[in-house]
Amino acid sequence: MAKKYVYSFSQGKADGRADMKNLLGGKGANLAEMCNIPGIPVPAGFTITTECCTDYYAHKARFPEGMMEQVEKGMKIMEKAMGRKFGDTKDPLLLSCRSGARESMPGMMETVLNVGLCSATIPGLIAKTGNERFVYDSYRRLMMMYSDVVMEKAEGIEPKGGHGIRLQLEHIMDELKDKNGYKADTAMTVEDLKDLCEAFKVKIKSSLGKSFPDDPWEQLKGGIGAVFKSWNGKRAIAYRNIEGIPHDWGTAVNVQAMVFGNMGETSATGVAFTRNPANGERKFFGEYLVNAQGEDVVAGIRTPEPINEATKNEHTAHLISLEKKMPRLYDQLDEIQKKLEKHYKNMQDLEFTIQENKLWMLQTRNGKRTGIAAVNMAMDMLEERLIDLETALTRVKPVQLDELLHPVIDPVAEKKADLLGKGLPAGPGGAFGALVFTAEDAVKWVRDGKAKNVILIREETNPEDIEGMRAAQGILTARGGMTSHAALVARGWGKCCIVGAADFEIDVTTRTVTIKGRILKEGDIVTLNGTKGCVYSGALPMIDATENPRFKAFLSLIDRYKGMKVRANADTPKDAAVARAFGAEGIGLFRIEHMFYGEGSEQSLGFLRQMIMSNGSGERKEALDKLFPSMKKDLKDTMKAMAGFPVTIRLLDPPLHEFVPTKPDGQDDLARAMGISIDEVKKRGEGLHEVNPMLGHRGVRLGITYPELTEMQVRAILEAGAELVKEGTKVVPEIMIPVTCTVNELKDQQAIVDEVAADVKRKYGLKNFDYLCGTMLEIPRACLLANEMAEVADFFSFGTNDLTQMGFGFSRDDMGSFIAPYLQKKILAEDPFLSIDQAGVGQLVKYGVERGRSVKPKLKIGICGEHGGEPESVKFFYSLGLDYVSCSPFRVPIARLASAQAEIAAKSASKKSSAKPAAAKKSAKKSAKKSSKKAAKKSAKPAAKKVAKKAAKPAAKKAAKKGKKK
Amino acid sequence: MAKKYVYSFSQGKADGRADMKNLLGGKGANLAEMCNIPGIPVPAGFTITTECCTDYYAHKARFPEGMMEQVEKGMKIMEKAMGRKFGDTKDPLLLSCRSGARESMPGMMETVLNVGLCSATIPGLIAKTGNERFVYDSYRRLMMMYSDVVMEKAEGIEPKGGHGIRLQLEHIMDELKDKNGYKADTAMTVEDLKDLCEAFKVKIKSSLGKSFPDDPWEQLKGGIGAVFKSWNGKRAIAYRNIEGIPHDWGTAVNVQAMVFGNMGETSATGVAFTRNPANGERKFFGEYLVNAQGEDVVAGIRTPEPINEATKNEHTAHLISLEKKMPRLYDQLDEIQKKLEKHYKNMQDLEFTIQENKLWMLQTRNGKRTGIAAVNMAMDMLEERLIDLETALTRVKPVQLDELLHPVIDPVAEKKADLLGKGLPAGPGGAFGALVFTAEDAVKWVRDGKAKNVILIREETNPEDIEGMRAAQGILTARGGMTSHAALVARGWGKCCIVGAADFEIDVTTRTVTIKGRILKEGDIVTLNGTKGCVYSGALPMIDATENPRFKAFLSLIDRYKGMKVRANADTPKDAAVARAFGAEGIGLFRIEHMFYGEGSEQSLGFLRQMIMSNGSGERKEALDKLFPSMKKDLKDTMKAMAGFPVTIRLLDPPLHEFVPTKPDGQDDLARAMGISIDEVKKRGEGLHEVNPMLGHRGVRLGITYPELTEMQVRAILEAGAELVKEGTKVVPEIMIPVTCTVNELKDQQAIVDEVAADVKRKYGLKNFDYLCGTMLEIPRACLLANEMAEVADFFSFGTNDLTQMGFGFSRDDMGSFIAPYLQKKILAEDPFLSIDQAGVGQLVKYGVERGRSVKPKLKIGICGEHGGEPESVKFFYSLGLDYVSCSPFRVPIARLASAQAEIAAKSASKKSSAKPAAAKKSAKKSAKKSSKKAAKKSAKPAAKKVAKKAAKPAAKKAAKKGKKK
Repeated sequence: MAKKYVYSFSQGKADGRADMKNLLGGKGANLAEMCNIPGIPVPAGFTITTECCTDYYAHKARFPEGMMEQVEKGMKIMEKAMGRKFGDTKDPLLLSCRSGARESMPGMMETVLNVGLCSATIPGLIAKTGNERFVYDSYRRLMMMYSDVVMEKAEGIEPKGGHGIRLQLEHIMDELKDKNGYKADTAMTVEDLKDLCEAFKVKIKSSLGKSFPDDPWEQLKGGIGAVFKSWNGKRAIAYRNIEGIPHDWGTAVNVQAMVFGNMGETSATGVAFTRNPANGERKFFGEYLVNAQGEDVVAGIRTPEPINEATKNEHTAHLISLEKKMPRLYDQLDEIQKKLEKHYKNMQDLEFTIQENKLWMLQTRNGKRTGIAAVNMAMDMLEERLIDLETALTRVKPVQLDELLHPVIDPVAEKKADLLGKGLPAGPGGAFGALVFTAEDAVKWVRDGKAKNVILIREETNPEDIEGMRAAQGILTARGGMTSHAALVARGWGKCCIVGAADFEIDVTTRTVTIKGRILKEGDIVTLNGTKGCVYSGALPMIDATENPRFKAFLSLIDRYKGMKVRANADTPKDAAVARAFGAEGIGLFRIEHMFYGEGSEQSLGFLRQMIMSNGSGERKEALDKLFPSMKKDLKDTMKAMAGFPVTIRLLDPPLHEFVPTKPDGQDDLARAMGISIDEVKKRGEGLHEVNPMLGHRGVRLGITYPELTEMQVRAILEAGAELVKEGTKVVPEIMIPVTCTVNELKDQQAIVDEVAADVKRKYGLKNFDYLCGTMLEIPRACLLANEMAEVADFFSFGTNDLTQMGFGFSRDDMGSFIAPYLQKKILAEDPFLSIDQAGVGQLVKYGVERGRSVKPKLKIGICGEHGGEPESVKFFYSLGLDYVSCSPFRVPIARLASAQAEIAAKSASKKSSAKPAAAKKSAKKSAKKSSKKAAKKSAKPAAKKVAKKAAKPAAKKAAKKGKKK
Repeated sequence: MAKKYVYSFSQGKADGRADMKNLLGGKGANLAEMCNIPGIPVPAGFTITTECCTDYYAHKARFPEGMMEQVEKGMKIMEKAMGRKFGDTKDPLLLSCRSGARESMPGMMETVLNVGLCSATIPGLIAKTGNERFVYDSYRRLMMMYSDVVMEKAEGIEPKGGHGIRLQLEHIMDELKDKNGYKADTAMTVEDLKDLCEAFKVKIKSSLGKSFPDDPWEQLKGGIGAVFKSWNGKRAIAYRNIEGIPHDWGTAVNVQAMVFGNMGETSATGVAFTRNPANGERKFFGEYLVNAQGEDVVAGIRTPEPINEATKNEHTAHLISLEKKMPRLYDQLDEIQKKLEKHYKNMQDLEFTIQENKLWMLQTRNGKRTGIAAVNMAMDMLEERLIDLETALTRVKPVQLDELLHPVIDPVAEKKADLLGKGLPAGPGGAFGALVFTAEDAVKWVRDGKAKNVILIREETNPEDIEGMRAAQGILTARGGMTSHAALVARGWGKCCIVGAADFEIDVTTRTVTIKGRILKEGDIVTLNGTKGCVYSGALPMIDATENPRFKAFLSLIDRYKGMKVRANADTPKDAAVARAFGAEGIGLFRIEHMFYGEGSEQSLGFLRQMIMSNGSGERKEALDKLFPSMKKDLKDTMKAMAGFPVTIRLLDPPLHEFVPTKPDGQDDLARAMGISIDEVKKRGEGLHEVNPMLGHRGVRLGITYPELTEMQVRAILEAGAELVKEGTKVVPEIMIPVTCTVNELKDQQAIVDEVAADVKRKYGLKNFDYLCGTMLEIPRACLLANEMAEVADFFSFGTNDLTQMGFGFSRDDMGSFIAPYLQKKILAEDPFLSIDQAGVGQLVKYGVERGRSVKPKLKIGICGEHGGEPESVKFFYSLGLDYVSCSPFRVPIARLASAQAEIAAKSASKKSSAKPAAAKKSAKKSAKKSSKKAAKKSAKPAAKKVAKKAAKPAAKKAAKKGKKK
């Protein structure tokens, strides 16, 4: 028997189902699903399977045997359902042929509409509709589409005349319009359209050497073939290459009866949402237009009218709603939307058409929504018991939380705003204020009340700008990438920030900035959208959703899923408190150097500078001694704020020259403090200059060359810890050595740590005082040799920023000059500093985990790079079995949600696999013993790990195993 | 039966052999081997096996059962051979207890000498030797050594008094000497020594609470135990950690009869070489001292005398040779040395002692030699048919060829020279000259005859210094690493160069340099040893061995082994010619940017600068058009010089700002050429500034952002190639894209290449015109995803410089500030830019090869980083199955030799494995069909690959396999 190639669907009955996407494509499966819900009127049709497409290509682009017989059968069913016949001279049925792949490939494949119009059917349709203009307009559209898509593209006929056939036909139409002085297509008369159709027929014949087919079935076959062909069109292939969609999937073809909303006053078309997609309000919401086609609603030529009274607002109060205009049809639609939402258990985005007082549903799909709406809907539906907890948690995209964590620009106002330029979205939310060009000005303007809000604009920022950055409402830099200084600091504070806005030519001397010829000066007001990277002229209104109680409730629900912990990158007691408030369970990255940035740290920074500029270890020790008390205090306060939770302290990491004063004031201060000349200060500062500081004298290398530096830091950490222990606080400091590339560095530094620890124990009379000493894995070599590192390290923490820098050879500070063309040309699918590059850098992380745990199976492993707060990355880290991620405090909720979602996904995957009896007998047995709910929860993590390991590249796995044997 | 723990050896008979190193340790195996050669008098003894040491540790540091019985048996054999008895009161035998591991661990373990001296044996020894002083001196030495090594260290007795027991005994001796006003130990009288021995006994008892053992057997057991214990001493463990020696190997113990060269005028001791180690001359060569101990010959307190008349020189003519002094013994020694050289088929380094007119051989080993000697000896021995070709080729260390390729400092003179300071040995050989501080001065001084030779000293060099670098005899920089600009350029030219001499504080303004307080000024003469990195004051004499005909003959022999090709990194027709002369089979790296350095390139550099500073692609194209003709010409000339061999041309790689003029002159020229202001030139130049240029806008990134740049270069390459093809020259240009991290970059650039190629074919009317388009693998990600890269690339070439930079996170330009402590503290065993880091970065190379070839099994793969000329790295690359290495022309012979040696080693390994019947039946069958010799040669390469793959980490292998399946 031949394969089943054709799946019919019509109201109340469909061969297919929603879960048959692989076979029927997304569109086909969805149409079938909708038909199977009682009471939903869907124009009938059939879906030709993706398998058929594959077979088509396997048979040298010929329809496989049996397909057309099945199409004919499908047509019969459709004709019966629609009460019209294809090719009928009295009341002809018109068809659409649409593509539909497993995964949406919007705009990449072809569509043919109005199939079935020909000399034989035109008169009947005119008679039936009484609308000659409509019929001829549809006919000329069919010819334009068909000659292009089917004849030229699919059949490969090269048109004469050098241009494509579509362009040639458009040219004829333009000439006609010009001749008559028409502006719009709609100005054409019925006679014009008739002439046009004749002219088109002639042109098609002369240009393509073949007549436009006047037979409905020939048109249909051509349409089906064209859709198949378009699967392997240039654009489609390129799109699949980029999106990683397999080329052998094939597309389905959906052949469906056409319905028309443009057949007079009893016809209409519209789009609607079952709830408000902007705020989540539980009100049926939508727009419609009488006597119009679908695209008219979206196109904005006519103003669509509100669908019902309940959702009218001041701007739409005067318009007539569908509820009033066609009350019966509105009630039917309302009935249907309730049914659909209940069926799909999600807010639906609907398309409908009314053709001569009959309602047709053309599409339903889960609707897009804002973050606020997503949270509100999830909480509402949970309350309504429409969905369960796990579903509610997966309904909000983690990044959407950003909208609730920061004030955002009112989206309505933003649509109409005056865009000045774009940069990289480095710090979330919106902010507006007066432009200032230096950090000093930012502080002064705000302090002196010259402006309430300022936006600091700089080429790039450095630690000396910290005060100004804090004072500003938002930060804008012309250079730098997603992990440049400005970006890191801003994200840490949850501050709005745009970096790498390369079009902004800044002139600090004149206090002006030129953007493609447009000049702004100091004091001009701009608004930043740090979530999108857009800079607008003027002040835009903001929405603040941070106090939404539903949001708080939502966050608390996340807490039930803690398979992977979320810590925060926090460097002050204040940050630590913020992080705790957002639900962080510890600090994954306390950067000692951040002590020297920001308010109140001037003295410490001074001592640090003295240390850096010291000549010899004598001078250096002296400066370190001065630095010690404040460092110890800061550490103690932070650990206290995080009491009961782990705190990982990273030893001094950046190249020292970053702290060297470059401004005369700072140099002068330092010279006086050190009792040396300014020239000497400059000279010593220059001596620290490096060609590539990122690959220079930094991290553990500082500790190797200046052991006294490690010794002082470790003493500050451990004495702070010891004092807290003495005071009865539970503290286990985690000392983290950065930038290691060989285990010997770790051994060298650990010797110092252990020595200091013994000393501190003695000093405080502590018998037991626990601390951990671990390392960052941020150098490729360290990941490759993680088995060696693990022999010494108590824990690993991936530094995926540096790992990405070195894995790609991209300097985060310099990639601004080439990342734009890289993204634009799709050479990179996305900025690897935003979402971890799973294919490449991800391998290094996998090696790190697997090789590390091959030596210490329970090795604690986290990640504290910027990726720790990016949802896709968080899911990836979960799949690798990491114990925690650490991110900026303001991203903690996002990471928590992403982690919970990963856990839920893993749980559901493990449920599915344990449904297969052979696969998971053991775990089934185990869980049978315990109360099922509890067991499920407990097994969630290990199950997830197993899944992850399976998904991990086999190579990496094998490597880890081999490592074990060594 | 108990294991055999004890292996006896005595003249003419030994239980062991040289190939039993694993069981007997290196020393024990060698002593056994020497004993087995008839006619070699060796003091008898026995070796306790390494296995015994392992068992000792397995039994809680107790001698395993049966060991002492075997020791007693061994003692009997020894006593019989020596004609004395251990512990005998009349003529006692004294023993030494020495360690001896599989691999030499010099100075890391303990030794006890003179074992067997006690109150019972002392009188007999005095009577027998008639030398009371000798006996008591030996006794006090035994006590010092034993109390320290056995009692304190091995038995773990803590001495009272806070100091080690050795220090306490030394203190007693110092007091005695002070009291008597003695300076030297030798001033002590017999009575003094007797008193000292008594005082020692008392001190040992009081400090350690235990008497010094007066029983020979107790002493012996203590000695054996102490050697075992020292295997796990702190120093030994640390040493093994660094050297990667397994901790479970254990050490053997060699117990041997002591012989004394200091028993009067009939006794002597000496060291000798079977041929001259300095120049290879075939003359028995050595030094000796009458009435002395071994260390006296080396210590330099007394002047040793020449061993024979033939090797006397003007300085030693007046001394009495052993040949004259003890003719019978000399003849015996001469006989023995001949025998030993013949046995070992290698120049031997001998130690001998004459005790009362009896000759004893204490040691023989292969002697160290200079490069010149190594080549001469290898060629002589080959001629003498002492060794075969393969052996001759393995007798010269590849790096030793350096000595023959460049003038070197006379080693005798160098020993006495005045060392100013050290840096990294960046360019080989020696050079002297007057110090100049700028490139301009270098050119001027030489041109004006102010000095014939100048040494250019700079902070660091840049392309603007090229002329001066060329003019200078040698280059010295205070900054930079082994692959800094100065190092790369100097090595390319084979010029003497030292970089990163951090102690040299240069002041260009005053034209002075301060080295730890010592000041040199312009014009002062210095000498550089670029092979060692030493800077000396004054001019030292040089030796030039480049014209040695034996060396040329040796080089031509290498040519028989070509398993892996050696190409050169060459950027000019001249370099190409030099490379050919050194035997390079192609160019592996032609750096397009090098066209803009050096003489005659001013105009091109000007155009390049215009291109770089262009605003927009219009200006850029204009500048590129100007650049085109000279680029094409250079390329054509170079390919012509390499006709018949492949030439790989790398597209523009360095960050553009490297070419930006920083000096007013250059800025002025550019401003005029471009018709813009100097300020604009400065501004545009600053705009190109990058924080980390190494990770910035360079390599393929330039080609992505400026496609016209790729287009112009490719056109120049292909047109040059096409013209040569038209002229009848065989040319297949290999276009190499640098710094790729994703296959999409390659696809993007290859599209340009293919388009230009089609154009060029059309233009020149060529039907077939072959070219390759490949990529560097120099970014970690590219190696990890080499399977993807291989789908597009025609070839790979590893850029191990950058791979090392990114693998380690080390900037080659900045590591000068920390590499010294890293090497000193043994955190790194060696500079990874010198010899490839096989454990870490090597994994990336392996992944690159294996994953690349999983997609294209015959993919051509080479390496063109600096490691291509370093022997250990070359061997590693051979083991991975690379097709070629490419290095500086002056390192081509070194790489060729290293490659040949790798091939020989693989061949011999495959011979060994095919000797095992099961292992290689198949290959045996095959080779049986052909003439055995030819077959062996042919199979050498695949065999080597197999071996290599086996040696490769299993993880990597598996990974590659899995990659294939994808």
